[in-house]
Amino acid sequence: IFTRLRDFIDNIANTSPARLALSAFGIVILVFTGLLSLPVSSATGESTPLYQSLFTAVSAVCVTGLTVVSTAVHWSFFGQLVILIGIFVGGLGTLTLASLLALMVSKKLGVRGKLIAQEAMNAGRLGEVGTLLRIVIVTSVVIEAALALALIPRFLMLGESFGQSVWHGVFYSISSFNNAGFTPHSDGIVPYETDLWILVPLMLGVFLGSLGFPVVMVLQQNGFNWKKWNLHTKLTIQVSLVLLVSGTVLWGLMEWNNLLTIGGMTVGDKVTHSLFASVMTRSGGFNLVDQNAMDSTTMLLTDALMFAGGGSASTAGGIKVTTIAVMFLAIAAEARGDSDVKVYGRTIPEGTMRVAISVIVAGATLVAVSAMLLLHISGASLDRVLFETISAFATVGLSTNLSAELPPSGVYVLAALMFAGRVGTVTLAAALALRQRSQLYHYPEERPIIG
Amino acid sequence: IFTRLRDFIDNIANTSPARLALSAFGIVILVFTGLLSLPVSSATGESTPLYQSLFTAVSAVCVTGLTVVSTAVHWSFFGQLVILIGIFVGGLGTLTLASLLALMVSKKLGVRGKLIAQEAMNAGRLGEVGTLLRIVIVTSVVIEAALALALIPRFLMLGESFGQSVWHGVFYSISSFNNAGFTPHSDGIVPYETDLWILVPLMLGVFLGSLGFPVVMVLQQNGFNWKKWNLHTKLTIQVSLVLLVSGTVLWGLMEWNNLLTIGGMTVGDKVTHSLFASVMTRSGGFNLVDQNAMDSTTMLLTDALMFAGGGSASTAGGIKVTTIAVMFLAIAAEARGDSDVKVYGRTIPEGTMRVAISVIVAGATLVAVSAMLLLHISGASLDRVLFETISAFATVGLSTNLSAELPPSGVYVLAALMFAGRVGTVTLAAALALRQRSQLYHYPEERPIIG
Ligand SMILES: [K+]
Ligand SMILES: [K+]
Repeated sequence: IFTRLRDFIDNIANTSPARLALSAFGIVILVFTGLLSLPVSSATGESTPLYQSLFTAVSAVCVTGLTVVSTAVHWSFFGQLVILIGIFVGGLGTLTLASLLALMVSKKLGVRGKLIAQEAMNAGRLGEVGTLLRIVIVTSVVIEAALALALIPRFLMLGESFGQSVWHGVFYSISSFNNAGFTPHSDGIVPYETDLWILVPLMLGVFLGSLGFPVVMVLQQNGFNWKKWNLHTKLTIQVSLVLLVSGTVLWGLMEWNNLLTIGGMTVGDKVTHSLFASVMTRSGGFNLVDQNAMDSTTMLLTDALMFAGGGSASTAGGIKVTTIAVMFLAIAAEARGDSDVKVYGRTIPEGTMRVAISVIVAGATLVAVSAMLLLHISGASLDRVLFETISAFATVGLSTNLSAELPPSGVYVLAALMFAGRVGTVTLAAALALRQRSQLYHYPEERPIIG
Repeated sequence: IFTRLRDFIDNIANTSPARLALSAFGIVILVFTGLLSLPVSSATGESTPLYQSLFTAVSAVCVTGLTVVSTAVHWSFFGQLVILIGIFVGGLGTLTLASLLALMVSKKLGVRGKLIAQEAMNAGRLGEVGTLLRIVIVTSVVIEAALALALIPRFLMLGESFGQSVWHGVFYSISSFNNAGFTPHSDGIVPYETDLWILVPLMLGVFLGSLGFPVVMVLQQNGFNWKKWNLHTKLTIQVSLVLLVSGTVLWGLMEWNNLLTIGGMTVGDKVTHSLFASVMTRSGGFNLVDQNAMDSTTMLLTDALMFAGGGSASTAGGIKVTTIAVMFLAIAAEARGDSDVKVYGRTIPEGTMRVAISVIVAGATLVAVSAMLLLHISGASLDRVLFETISAFATVGLSTNLSAELPPSGVYVLAALMFAGRVGTVTLAAALALRQRSQLYHYPEERPIIG
């Protein structure tokens, strides 16, 4: 029976990956919605309304971190455990699904440079999906365990009981590596805003998690030997670092004198806050300052960084850094007058560029339509609506607290957006790439005037 | 001497079109700034501050229509005449420059389907620039005269003196065909909000002007014989109509029950208002309702339509409808799995697509950076800032009155944005297209993971 089930899943995964992704995430979300609706999940012992439990389940499974009720206050320990398991399962699902799709694309189109230890994949006593899932689980658990071991002693030192410390260490390690942004404390991590022992592991976890599984595999096999990295790894790390540094500098400059956020702090704390804020836009979702207290300009900057997101096949969301890289490389090629899009001795095919454009336009359209709906439903200001919308689309979880103020209809819109942002971007890109075929005949060329 | 000057201009136009465009527009703007700074230009006989006269000159020459002082109240008749001449000169300059650049691109890259009666261009007793300018002037003046003849009788019937009627008729005809959006009445055209005799010529003028000179030439030569149209004309007219209709429907739906705008009107007036609002986003700039009274959702819709803009080599601004068409055709090709971007039996080359993406990204970046600056300078809400920013970039002229509230620094930012939006988009696209060259060697292909 187990063999049959495995063959069945492998079969679906290979014939219709989009359908598999949508139904798998859908079923998991329904199960967690059911669990969170149970009276035992809430702190008061009353059953939670559907729109709240559904939103929380989507937010956990899609590793977003937006909340309509306080995680620490509303949910019982059981409820919080359900959320944590939701994050864990959702994170693994995301990594496995996205890696699987990338593998299929690379098989079909013949990608130079192995994406994911393909020799390991071809053996597969468990079938392709099973093998991939095993590698993903081992990698995730090892990293999460290391993070937890770093955090637990600190919570002990801060006077928490052993049980509490382990719980908090495990929660934060899973929440950070999976870029989930949920916190088990009612004030989030604000009380630790100057505690580097806690902030550094969180930032490391989020950054590592946001690089994506294919990059982590390459790093594990080749270390920091730049020449042995494939193009995907080079682009991902480069763009991630550029966004990290420019985000830190710009965020710091914009908030430097804002007394509501970091204006009154020491220079060291200002720098820590800026770095932390920049890391968390891609797409960790923890926050040290009240996002409503930020300057409107900083909110727009955060919007842009969140929309960009993290690496492909990672738990980060957004349109992904390689998508941005391909777009900018195309523009740079255009500015130089080159007919090929070249980088690091490689040509990026036209088809890849068109997939990138499609992903960007689809993302922008999703955000624009959702923002219009939420403007209409909430009557809130555009900057807050846009912030919450992009945070949901890119599964970031930074919030101006608009989610908690929305009526049920708005909550459903945001939940749908998180789902679309999580599953949609990945499957869209793969589906497009898999459809590419060469043509037997060509029409003559004609250029419309542009600009 | 005249022959020498002509050769000199032809020479610059052919070697460095971008520099010609920037310096020509720059000089014209400085002249008009000087004229508007004269005491005789203002109604009170006092000299106008530099930032106000510069902004007005840029707004007129770049055919935008944003104002920091009321055109009807602040300026004397002489000042208004200067503005009108600025619009006329700026409109002709825009059409000539953009057509010239399109001609150069088509010559260099060999475009199928004549763009602009090229046989007429090759003769040219006046030189290429002169011939083009002559055709542009004749076409513009004929259309503007027809519009003025339609409007003057109506102003006479409404009880204005003959002189007044002619002045208003001429002003509105030039302002509408050049997509300038300036009005000589202190209430703008709001008093005529149900007067179809005035609204219809205005809409026709704006729509015709927004198609662009190359399309008008094709229509003049081939009429509505679809089969004889070139690809540029087909795409421009098709996308313009799609935007016009969808803009009308969405604007109408969003404002239908808004008592501050059209909520209290008859169904007929609601439809007229919706159609008018939709036409004016591309990029006429006349308004019948207070733009601040519109729903935030409608403002976002207007933002999107304004950013899209009108046809290439037209007096409309924005990223241009063919740019959008090329991007969507690329996405559609991707969704179908085609390796070529095909439409109407023609293939659109990869280079054209990359120019389109570059124009879109450059425009979005300009808007984002300017919006951040203005948010910081003005402290106004994001929806108003974004609206005014996009209106300036796309030289639309619809306004939430933010321009008039800005301190001088903000006024200069908006003026620079109008200039960049007017001259920048056009020259960028041409410069990129002209740089395209084929390559002698190719690197191997490698695909990063997208999405
Ligand atoms: K997150
Ligand atoms: K205008």
